[in-house]
Amino acid sequence: MDDATEQVIIIGAGFGGLSAAKRLARSGIPFTLIDKRNHHLFQPLLYQVATAALAPSDIAVPIRAVLPPGKTDAQILMDRVDGINTEKKLVHTVGGARLRYSNLIVATGAQYTYFGNDDAWAPHAPSLKSLDDALNIRRRVLLAFERAETTEDPQLRKRLMTFVVIGGGPTGVETAGALAELAKATLAREFKNIDPRSARVVLIEAMDNVLTAYPEHLGRYAIDKLERLGVEVMTGAPVKAIDGHGVTLDDQAIETPNVFWCAGVIATPAGEWLGADMAKNGAVEVDAFLRPKGFDDVYVIGDVSSAKDKDGNPLAALAPVAKQQGDFAARMIIAKHHSLPEPTPFRYRDWGTMATIGRSAAVGKFGRLEVRGFFAWLLWGAVHVAYLVGFRNRLSVMINWLWSWLTYHKGARLITGPDEADVQSLDSTTAVEKELDKTVTNLEESVAR
Amino acid sequence: MDDATEQVIIIGAGFGGLSAAKRLARSGIPFTLIDKRNHHLFQPLLYQVATAALAPSDIAVPIRAVLPPGKTDAQILMDRVDGINTEKKLVHTVGGARLRYSNLIVATGAQYTYFGNDDAWAPHAPSLKSLDDALNIRRRVLLAFERAETTEDPQLRKRLMTFVVIGGGPTGVETAGALAELAKATLAREFKNIDPRSARVVLIEAMDNVLTAYPEHLGRYAIDKLERLGVEVMTGAPVKAIDGHGVTLDDQAIETPNVFWCAGVIATPAGEWLGADMAKNGAVEVDAFLRPKGFDDVYVIGDVSSAKDKDGNPLAALAPVAKQQGDFAARMIIAKHHSLPEPTPFRYRDWGTMATIGRSAAVGKFGRLEVRGFFAWLLWGAVHVAYLVGFRNRLSVMINWLWSWLTYHKGARLITGPDEADVQSLDSTTAVEKELDKTVTNLEESVAR
Repeated sequence: MDDATEQVIIIGAGFGGLSAAKRLARSGIPFTLIDKRNHHLFQPLLYQVATAALAPSDIAVPIRAVLPPGKTDAQILMDRVDGINTEKKLVHTVGGARLRYSNLIVATGAQYTYFGNDDAWAPHAPSLKSLDDALNIRRRVLLAFERAETTEDPQLRKRLMTFVVIGGGPTGVETAGALAELAKATLAREFKNIDPRSARVVLIEAMDNVLTAYPEHLGRYAIDKLERLGVEVMTGAPVKAIDGHGVTLDDQAIETPNVFWCAGVIATPAGEWLGADMAKNGAVEVDAFLRPKGFDDVYVIGDVSSAKDKDGNPLAALAPVAKQQGDFAARMIIAKHHSLPEPTPFRYRDWGTMATIGRSAAVGKFGRLEVRGFFAWLLWGAVHVAYLVGFRNRLSVMINWLWSWLTYHKGARLITGPDEADVQSLDSTTAVEKELDKTVTNLEESVAR
Repeated sequence: MDDATEQVIIIGAGFGGLSAAKRLARSGIPFTLIDKRNHHLFQPLLYQVATAALAPSDIAVPIRAVLPPGKTDAQILMDRVDGINTEKKLVHTVGGARLRYSNLIVATGAQYTYFGNDDAWAPHAPSLKSLDDALNIRRRVLLAFERAETTEDPQLRKRLMTFVVIGGGPTGVETAGALAELAKATLAREFKNIDPRSARVVLIEAMDNVLTAYPEHLGRYAIDKLERLGVEVMTGAPVKAIDGHGVTLDDQAIETPNVFWCAGVIATPAGEWLGADMAKNGAVEVDAFLRPKGFDDVYVIGDVSSAKDKDGNPLAALAPVAKQQGDFAARMIIAKHHSLPEPTPFRYRDWGTMATIGRSAAVGKFGRLEVRGFFAWLLWGAVHVAYLVGFRNRLSVMINWLWSWLTYHKGARLITGPDEADVQSLDSTTAVEKELDKTVTNLEESVAR
C-alpha cells in the first residue's frame, strides 16, 4: 500500500500508542495505527497467562474493537514497521507499505536482551513479552510435570521439577511466586508418582536485592514472602551461562530444562530508524515535548523513549508513563492541527507503582507512602482490573481470580501448541493412521459427505 | 514406564473415556487413564473457539482437575497409545510405556479423513478436531481479513474474503453460520478499506440436504436460516479437488485460501490394534456388552465403536452415546470386580439431539418431538452449558455468550501462533534487531540484571 496522503501515524498499540490513538480518535483527526499484532496486550498480567491463571483473551483486546474504524477516522494496519525515512517522511513496513506522515508517534516499546548471548541463551531461556511467549512457557511448565510423572529416572525427574526464573524485577518476582503457587497448591494432589510440592523454584538476581525500583526494605519483604511461598531466592548471583543443561552461576550449576528469562530489557530499534540520539539501552533521547533533537513532527513515547523528569532523572519504563506520554503527544498534534498554543512541557504525574508476590501479598509505593501485605495485594488487584481495557475482560479476570483464590484451581491449565502430542516422536503413530486412512479410502464413495 | 501390575486401563479422555473413569473413580477401583492431551475437550463447542466466540479454556478442563489422583485411585498418563498386544494384555505408548491391563476400555474416538486425499487436501483445508486446530482456523480467518484490508489487488481481496466450509453436518452448519455472523456483524464496522459484510461464506455438501441425521424438513429449515444469515449453501455438490487455489466442484471453482473441512470422519485405528472386526468406517464391531468378538476383557466405546440399537441400526457418533457407553463399560468392570451379576445388555437412552444455526436459531429432535427456531436455540444453549464440565467453564461460557449476544462482540478475536507477526517475511526485521542487540551489548555491564 503506497499512500501519498500525509497523515498522522502511530507505530505500536501498546499502552502509549493506544492512549495517543484514543485521544486522536476523540478529536476527530484521522490517523493510522500500525501494529504487528491484531491485539493490545495488558502486559502487567502476562505472567498470569504463562502460569495458567488467566486465558489469553482475558488480557488482550483486538485493536479494531477498541478503535472501530467504522466509527472513528482511525485506520488500523496489522504490519511490522522496519524503517523510517525521515527525509521523505515515510514509514516502511515489512508488508511493503510506504506511508507518508505529517506527524509521527513512535511507541514501539522494549524487547528482551540476553546481553550479547541471544543466539546461545534465548533458545534455552524463553522470555515473556507476547501471548505466544506466555503460551510457550505455560506449555513448557505443564509438560515438565507430565514428563516427571512418567519418567522412572530420578535424576531426570529432579531436573524436570526444577524451575529457574532469571531477573528479580516485578516480572521475575511475580512469575516465581506464581510458579511456586502452581506447584505447591494447584497441582499438589494431582499426580501419582511425583509430589509437585517438592518442585524447586529458584529466582536468580545479579544484584543484592529484588525489586530495586522500590525502597530496599520492600525488596527484603518480597524476598521473605517469596521464601515463605517456597521460592529459593539467590541474590548477588550473576548468570555465567545458559544452555541445554541449565544455568551456570559463579559457584554452582542448576540442572533444568525450565529456565525463564525476565531480565535485561532494551529499547526496540526506532532510534536507529530515526538516526536520533539514544540512551545506552537504545531508547531515544527526547526533549520536554517528547521530540528527539532536530525533529518537530516526531514524538517518541513509552519504553522506546528516554525522557527525564523535572530533576533530570530518567522516567521508568512503566505503563502509566507510556499512557500519559501518549496522551500528551496526541494533544501536541491536536494543538498543531487547530493552530492552538502548544501545551506546557510534559510532566509525569506519578500515582505510584505496585508489584505482587504470590496469592496474598504485594508491595506498593505512592510518593512517600509505602504499602505491603494483604491490603496492598487487594489494592493491586483492584488497580489492575480497573485498568484492563474492556468490560468483558474485567469481569472475566475478576471471576477467574476469585475462583482460583477460593479453590486454588487455575482455569487455563491447557497444554496446546506444536509440542502437544509430541511427548516423544509421533512418526510411528501417524504412519499407522495414514495406513488406515488409505485402506478405508477404497470404501468411501462420495467425496464431500 | 513398565508396569507389570494388572490394572484397569482406559484409553482416551473424551466423553466416553471420562464417563467410564468417573464411574470407576466413585467405585474405588484403581485405574489408569491415558490421553495424548492433558485436557478433556468439549468438542460440540469447538467451532466457537475457531470463530473467536469462546476461549480455549472455556471448553476444556485439565483431566487431572476432573479426576485428582491425590483424591482417587486414578493414574493419569499423558502419552499417545500406538498399539495393543492382546495376547500379553499390554498397551504400548509412543512414550515407551508397556502397561498390563486386567480390563481395557478403548475410547480413542474418530478423526477426519479426506477420502484418500489426505496428503493433497489436508494442508489446504484444515479440519476441526483439537484446540490447536481451532486456534489455527481462528488465526487463518482473522488474518484473511487483515490481509484483505492491506492489499490493493481486488482479485486477491476477493479471494481472501471468501470462506468455504465443506460438509453439511452439524459442525459444518454451525461453523458456516458462525463465520457469517463474524463477517456480517462482529467485524462489520471495523475496517476502512474493506466491507466485511461483503465476505462470501459458502457451505458445500455432496448430498441434497444438510443435517441429514434430522428429518428432511429440518435440514431445509437450516438451509433457509443459513441463507438469511448470508451463507451460500451448495447442496448436491461433491468436491473434486482442493489445492492452494481453492476448491473445485463439478461445475465451478471457488478461489480462496480459506477452506475448512468438516466432512468425512473415520474411526481411530484401535480396530487394527485389536485385530477386531470393523465396520466400513474403521469402527470396532461390538456385541450387546460393548465387547469385540472374542474378547471378554476389552470394551470399545464412543466414536471408535460400532454398536447397534435394539432394531439393529448403528448408533450415531454422538457425545451422549459415548457417555452412556463409558458408564456401562465401567459398570461391567465393577460387577466383574465384585463378582456381581452382569448388567443387562447396553441400551442407549436417546434424550434427543440438537444443532444450532447462527445466533438465534437451532433445530432439535427428541424422539418424535421436533423443535426449531429461537426457543430451540435457547434450549440448545442451556443443554450445552449444563453438560460442560466444571462450574467455572459454565459461568465463563454463559458470560461470553450473553456478552456477544448483546453486543455482537467476540471475546477471543486474537491472532496468535507462528504466523502472528509473519505478515510477510520477517528476516529483514530480525536482522536489524539482532544488529542493534549486538551494538548495545558492549554497553551492558552485569550479566543478569
